[in-house]
Amino acid sequence: MTAEIICVGTELLLGDIVNTNAQFLSRELAELGISVLHQHVVGDNVARLKELVSTARARSDLLVFSGGLGPTADDLTKETVAEAFGDTLVFDPEEWQKIVDFFARTGRTPTGNNRKQAMVPVHGRKLPNAHGTAPGAWFEDADGHCAALMPGVPREMKAMWAEQVRPILERRQNCTIHSKTLHVLGGESRIAEKVGGLFDSANPTVAIYCKTGESEIRVTARAATADKAEAQCDAMLDKLRARLGDSAYDVDVPSLEYTVVRALKARGLHAATAESCTGGLVAERITNVPGSSEVFSYGFVTYSEAAKAKLLGVDPALIERYNVVSGPVAVAMALGAQRISGAELTVALTGIAGPGGALPGKPVGTVYLGGYDARHDRAYLMRLTLGGYRERGIIRTRAALYALDLLRRMALDLPQPEALTLDAAGPQSPAAVPACLADPGRLDL
Amino acid sequence: MTAEIICVGTELLLGDIVNTNAQFLSRELAELGISVLHQHVVGDNVARLKELVSTARARSDLLVFSGGLGPTADDLTKETVAEAFGDTLVFDPEEWQKIVDFFARTGRTPTGNNRKQAMVPVHGRKLPNAHGTAPGAWFEDADGHCAALMPGVPREMKAMWAEQVRPILERRQNCTIHSKTLHVLGGESRIAEKVGGLFDSANPTVAIYCKTGESEIRVTARAATADKAEAQCDAMLDKLRARLGDSAYDVDVPSLEYTVVRALKARGLHAATAESCTGGLVAERITNVPGSSEVFSYGFVTYSEAAKAKLLGVDPALIERYNVVSGPVAVAMALGAQRISGAELTVALTGIAGPGGALPGKPVGTVYLGGYDARHDRAYLMRLTLGGYRERGIIRTRAALYALDLLRRMALDLPQPEALTLDAAGPQSPAAVPACLADPGRLDL
Repeated sequence: MTAEIICVGTELLLGDIVNTNAQFLSRELAELGISVLHQHVVGDNVARLKELVSTARARSDLLVFSGGLGPTADDLTKETVAEAFGDTLVFDPEEWQKIVDFFARTGRTPTGNNRKQAMVPVHGRKLPNAHGTAPGAWFEDADGHCAALMPGVPREMKAMWAEQVRPILERRQNCTIHSKTLHVLGGESRIAEKVGGLFDSANPTVAIYCKTGESEIRVTARAATADKAEAQCDAMLDKLRARLGDSAYDVDVPSLEYTVVRALKARGLHAATAESCTGGLVAERITNVPGSSEVFSYGFVTYSEAAKAKLLGVDPALIERYNVVSGPVAVAMALGAQRISGAELTVALTGIAGPGGALPGKPVGTVYLGGYDARHDRAYLMRLTLGGYRERGIIRTRAALYALDLLRRMALDLPQPEALTLDAAGPQSPAAVPACLADPGRLDL
Repeated sequence: MTAEIICVGTELLLGDIVNTNAQFLSRELAELGISVLHQHVVGDNVARLKELVSTARARSDLLVFSGGLGPTADDLTKETVAEAFGDTLVFDPEEWQKIVDFFARTGRTPTGNNRKQAMVPVHGRKLPNAHGTAPGAWFEDADGHCAALMPGVPREMKAMWAEQVRPILERRQNCTIHSKTLHVLGGESRIAEKVGGLFDSANPTVAIYCKTGESEIRVTARAATADKAEAQCDAMLDKLRARLGDSAYDVDVPSLEYTVVRALKARGLHAATAESCTGGLVAERITNVPGSSEVFSYGFVTYSEAAKAKLLGVDPALIERYNVVSGPVAVAMALGAQRISGAELTVALTGIAGPGGALPGKPVGTVYLGGYDARHDRAYLMRLTLGGYRERGIIRTRAALYALDLLRRMALDLPQPEALTLDAAGPQSPAAVPACLADPGRLDL
């Protein structure tokens, strides 16, 4: 089956908003095994819309629309497509009542214009809208070409897609789709080295999406039943995890901090942070997780030497001897945070986020990450060299990611070194530094 | 002049990436007074590309391409467009040398495939690529239709657009374009009430773009010379500022924290933060500004009652009496942060970011923001009710924005109340609370 995506909206043609609907629909259609050959954006112009619908219908099996279902006079997508597909529209009292009720809830009265939103196909079918006023529509012509019309608001469109349109297409494709996303630390090339062959799998498909310092591997299975599709996904996830080891940190989570908070809760542990170059980013990410107050109470942002001494008790002599951007200072910060907070696990960062501030032998992007596990009285230290990324924001984001991963590994008693050498442009050889617990002065890093 | 945007790339059709190029180009073309009638995405398929180019050329004056200039055999955009525009391509030794040099710098050798990237139009012109290997191309047919071919990598495309393509189009449009962006706190509807009429201006144009808790107003002037265009922009900015007051916080800055850091530097002031519900977000934003260490040293994330007492010296009896989410606690946090940090200006936040944690009379989204200005021994307090936004992330983002604005207003000695009642769904009447400096117990908020 071939498809074209048609997004209707003057705001897209003016560049007021970015077209995320096209990406969402393209990915979903690809997962259904439907080839998307074109994406289009047109304005609320009937002549141009008519021309496009006619061309697209002639060459593709399925047209997927978003937008153009509004109440104003120039929103004529539904009317135009109905005509092209040989269908007509009829007033639907049930949909009209929903519109009236919706307006009543928000203290307003619908206008005559809103009545056109309650018009639905005679031969096709309406697609109820659980999250807004305008129903969508499904058209089908005598030759079997189909068209799905959905709202332009992403939240409404995605709900209608999942609840109404995708099930129709799954039946047509005679299958059910199930997707799971594996979250993995490290860049695409390093991951591809380990799991490369699996990307060629036809069913389930395996696709990789890169984010800063980590990647998502999306596994999508097609099968006759939902259970079978999920089982195929799980089997592929097992294969991926076997090759990726514990750099694969979770499945279907919003982000690493969710995994960290869950791990801390599961083990009854608490974390605290001491941050210089990341300026509160690690704390901010942990506390972004609902319920994180169970496992996190203390975050220190110590952005000057005086603050490190005053809040964390870092010995100014240590800073004087090793420089504030150094391994001993990072570990001393982690220890100080532990002493004050009482948390079992702490992480600390001191580094040069740039663009200025480079030191001899310590270019922009040099970050020392210290960790302390009070249960085992064990400290961890790694030197990250993130300067290749240039941008301050990326250096900070990657440093925070390593800090969160250090917390995860401490909480789950996973080995540290393997994790911390995973990223292609990542840390140099990490070293456990128990010596500095007794005398940080002995540590020359 | 009418235009169509054509983005070439299988990764777009598969939904691997979102098409930000189309938005960028649409906005730029709109500013040049060129009407964009269609946006398209096609894959690396010659037949479909040829059909599309033929249709688009017949109905539009200008075709703007991004992508399809790569070295692989299926990248045939340049060849296809050259043919449609009656041009031919010729090998350009200068461009080839650039490619060879680029590869040498990255320790690689170009392949034969890369030679096609050095092919340039005979009748049209090449568009040098300052940030990558592949030059772009400009074609023009006998009827005056034009085509601009640029790379798909956004950084390369944007540079080529600004340096090569836009100047050509400015000459065609017989004008120069200048844009400035005014940053304003508050939502679109409240801003539109004040400056509504100005949105209808034809030259300069005035467009509003909404962000969380704030808006950007982009002013774009077209004039015969750059100086005149800039002067027109400035005149419009003056009008906007006269109506918007000091909720218009800056022009052409990345974000509010840049304005805050600059204001602090200009006045020789320092800031410190004490955060509960925002969990470090305010500190993270301030320290995201290069050079912020001059004005910021201390950030406290106190995510439990014990942490507020231990780090900031908040009296547990105060928490007991008023609850930890309360005005007195917010002010006590700000005072504590001042005492320890010595910073002239401090802000503190305590609130309920949700989804759980609602209290009687304090629904999710209730945030108390305290501020202290040690120069004048003056405290500020406001109660924000952000629950209408539901999402934890949005509540935190908006609360942090108010905190940054409080810092800005304290630093610049601007009045607080007007600012803090600006946002449509924002704070209720803020109250200065000098009484609590002597005895926080007296304050019942």
